[in-house]
Amino acid sequence: MIRNEIEKRILWGDLDSLCIVFYPRYYEWIDGCSHLFFEKISLDLVKLWRNRQLIFSLVKTSCEYIRPGRYLQDIIITTHIEKLEKKTVILNHAITDKSTGKIMVKGVEKRICMGVEDLNNFKAMDIPEDIYEIFKNCL
Amino acid sequence: MIRNEIEKRILWGDLDSLCIVFYPRYYEWIDGCSHLFFEKISLDLVKLWRNRQLIFSLVKTSCEYIRPGRYLQDIIITTHIEKLEKKTVILNHAITDKSTGKIMVKGVEKRICMGVEDLNNFKAMDIPEDIYEIFKNCL
Amino acid sequence: MIRNEIEKRILWGDLDSLCIVFYPRYYEWIDGCSHLFFEKISLDLVKLWRNRQLIFSLVKTSCEYIRPGRYLQDIIITTHIEKLEKKTVILNHAITDKSTGKIMVKGVEKRICMGVEDLNNFKAMDIPEDIYEIFKNCL
Amino acid sequence: MIRNEIEKRILWGDLDSLCIVFYPRYYEWIDGCSHLFFEKISLDLVKLWRNRQLIFSLVKTSCEYIRPGRYLQDIIITTHIEKLEKKTVILNHAITDKSTGKIMVKGVEKRICMGVEDLNNFKAMDIPEDIYEIFKNCL
Repeated sequence: MIRNEIEKRILWGDLDSLCIVFYPRYYEWIDGCSHLFFEKISLDLVKLWRNRQLIFSLVKTSCEYIRPGRYLQDIIITTHIEKLEKKTVILNHAITDKSTGKIMVKGVEKRICMGVEDLNNFKAMDIPEDIYEIFKNCL
Repeated sequence: MIRNEIEKRILWGDLDSLCIVFYPRYYEWIDGCSHLFFEKISLDLVKLWRNRQLIFSLVKTSCEYIRPGRYLQDIIITTHIEKLEKKTVILNHAITDKSTGKIMVKGVEKRICMGVEDLNNFKAMDIPEDIYEIFKNCL
Repeated sequence: MIRNEIEKRILWGDLDSLCIVFYPRYYEWIDGCSHLFFEKISLDLVKLWRNRQLIFSLVKTSCEYIRPGRYLQDIIITTHIEKLEKKTVILNHAITDKSTGKIMVKGVEKRICMGVEDLNNFKAMDIPEDIYEIFKNCL
Repeated sequence: MIRNEIEKRILWGDLDSLCIVFYPRYYEWIDGCSHLFFEKISLDLVKLWRNRQLIFSLVKTSCEYIRPGRYLQDIIITTHIEKLEKKTVILNHAITDKSTGKIMVKGVEKRICMGVEDLNNFKAMDIPEDIYEIFKNCL
């Protein structure tokens, strides 16, 4: 199974008034980590859009919050493909504390393949075979 | 059932390179709408924290994306309590297009009552009776 | 002189650990208010981009912070054109407390007209005459 | 002169609809880099706040935009102290493209020492001597 690990430091601007991470920041990070995961498996999402007019749009996202993130804490976000279907791929993101390895947040993104020739009217489509193969090799 | 409606306009900075809302923005908005819902039922979350050392921290959040949000679109975010338990409350947020009423995003936040006397060690606790009553009257 | 006023409420997610607005949020708001100012004078910036391949890109921005913004505070952002030149327009944004009228933040954005036929190579250009006229009438 | 360098990768969520960085993100980054600069010179800003009730609050910030940031571009943010006065310190941030070294954004933050014993009433104060010495050694 292919996993991608991204290290990150929690900064002042990520925190809310309780001095813990404001939860929408986790979604910003896991979205970024999906793009980096795709890049690792040689799928540049912007090139896919520009060259083949397809994107992997969000159907559903969720996060569970187990331990709060704090100022200057070093974290690791580990991304892998959890499930693959004809049109969709589910990405799993585990955010852990770098020093203890303890889980902080579990994030899930369900993404669907969309044709975007018409930017005002995206259309769900089967994942093209070559990309499906790349995803399958990640499982 | 008590519902709170917040109107909002989608702005340039909310959009990604596909000219649709970058999904973590929806979470920023529904978090804000939870605070405004609490305010409507006379629970100022910052005063609760300052005066009674309790907060409603996130256990889990999720969003389903049905229609993309676009530049200068007027939207309505409608918030209500979906479920109430001893320690937790589930808030439901429906984001709709103002002109057509069509659903765009369904968001859910599960929040847990926490004692935060020690800011470094939050503790789950039963929702105090007076607050529980207020929530029950919202169902 | 044409001014545009936008009312806004400061929310939990806008605050940092000191319970005051995290300053990059002010820039998000004034950017949004520039777009709304342009819309008020019948310049939809996205249509300008799509139909005429021109944008008003940032050259320089700045903010002065006079009073901190706080939880659920109602603020007003007042935008007007401060200066107009052949290629550039300077927008001035005053953020005030709604109840007292006291100034909180003074923001300035210098924007330059750019041709974006080639998205990878923006080119500074004179503001087209019709748009220059609209701006002049705002002074 | 002491400089701190932070490497960063531009991600999808940092971009606007023109596929370039939405400018408030630069302010988020330079704010973070100020905190990391302070950490490098052994000033943990949260500990300063907690232990000595003082913060370095913003008086004024500005950015000049020279070249746009793009998808997955690697950048370097270099921070140093530009000027030191009795109550204030000016931080300079240069954002450059990692591969070419070309300047993209020049950011400046003027920060003032504030006593925050009363969180509702910050008071400007002289920078304490020991901290002033640390800053002076960075020039």
